[in-house]
Amino acid sequence: MAVRVVGFDGDDTLWHSETRFSMTQAEYRELLGRHVPEADVDERLAQTEMKNLSIYGYGIKSFTLSMLETAIELTEARIPAADLDVILGWGKRMLMEPTELLNEVEQTLKEIARRYDLLLITKGDLFDQESKLARSGLGELFLGVEIVSEKDLGTYRAILQRRGISPGDFVMVGNSLRSDIVPVVNLGAQAVHIPYEVTWHHEHVPDEQLPRQGWRRIKAIGELPAVLETL
Amino acid sequence: MAVRVVGFDGDDTLWHSETRFSMTQAEYRELLGRHVPEADVDERLAQTEMKNLSIYGYGIKSFTLSMLETAIELTEARIPAADLDVILGWGKRMLMEPTELLNEVEQTLKEIARRYDLLLITKGDLFDQESKLARSGLGELFLGVEIVSEKDLGTYRAILQRRGISPGDFVMVGNSLRSDIVPVVNLGAQAVHIPYEVTWHHEHVPDEQLPRQGWRRIKAIGELPAVLETL
Repeated sequence: MAVRVVGFDGDDTLWHSETRFSMTQAEYRELLGRHVPEADVDERLAQTEMKNLSIYGYGIKSFTLSMLETAIELTEARIPAADLDVILGWGKRMLMEPTELLNEVEQTLKEIARRYDLLLITKGDLFDQESKLARSGLGELFLGVEIVSEKDLGTYRAILQRRGISPGDFVMVGNSLRSDIVPVVNLGAQAVHIPYEVTWHHEHVPDEQLPRQGWRRIKAIGELPAVLETL
Repeated sequence: MAVRVVGFDGDDTLWHSETRFSMTQAEYRELLGRHVPEADVDERLAQTEMKNLSIYGYGIKSFTLSMLETAIELTEARIPAADLDVILGWGKRMLMEPTELLNEVEQTLKEIARRYDLLLITKGDLFDQESKLARSGLGELFLGVEIVSEKDLGTYRAILQRRGISPGDFVMVGNSLRSDIVPVVNLGAQAVHIPYEVTWHHEHVPDEQLPRQGWRRIKAIGELPAVLETL
């Protein structure tokens, strides 16, 4: 069994994403703290995001709408529109930021692309993800790009079937145990986990729910070429 | 040359969409009219939407964010947060509305699916479009679903190439001259235009820019099976 196709997650695997959410959220906490100093802003925002996930899906626009909703709720609608306008501006700023690649991503992907077919399999807002990929300069390295609304076993199965890839030929590389590792291993393919410095609470998986085999963890993407040769 | 694959647009071709934007926009006009009775709300909102298109892309979340921005701008931030919360609620309501099929869609698609491969090629927000398709009950009729951020010649070319469809085998059916007809005909495939009762200003095409051949117009989707036999 030799791997032929390598799937890559985008956000926090190839380019920075969660740190940007965290940075904006710090500004948000500070802004709301002026109106409701006693409120647990992070907790309330997280609740709003989870409640809205089935309506909005993932992404920066969804995050922005949830920040606005939480701000109005927490202040009992006393927050001035000018402050809500600041929040709208943060959303736009996040959407327009240049794509900042993680260390060693470009040279590693170029090296891997010489031996394997590369797929980008990324979750979130279609328009934002396409725009990020375009600005990343990595577009040409991928044989295919799949932007999906949820990364579960069914999603991966459909992608592999449509592309005529058997699970034994496939390895997925990503920072999220929940989205990049567990469903892929359960499908019978392999996975490589590269933890990012920050993990969104929603992506956490308890240790006892992790598969025992079929995946391994590396510290940085630069280790990937050597690891792929052993799979 | 006989058509083998039929592509369908979703919004305003299979299910109602623009009327819902129009209905919400009427409520929005009324709400803002209380604060700025002299303002041309529709015009200002359209300007904001066009300005934001390259940042937000299409879809209901983008529309909601643009309504909020325009409301704050037009009232010079004097609008109370409670009114902005009402606008947030309209966005959610639009996202949660059941998918309402146009007349004769279900029986026509079932009839066509017996003779042709069906593709859904639709523009907009990934999460919202998937959710609409799931709620439409039509999912099983389509061999494939393509949700794209823009429908131009390059988009159609990539879809047909990836699926091994030559332009001569393909006909696209939709309500938008700009997105469903012009790029498809320019690619050498055929197209069938079914006008919807409302056209979003952004989708308008001047008559002199329309292709002379390669497409035709019908009044309702019920005429489609007979038309396909002549292509």
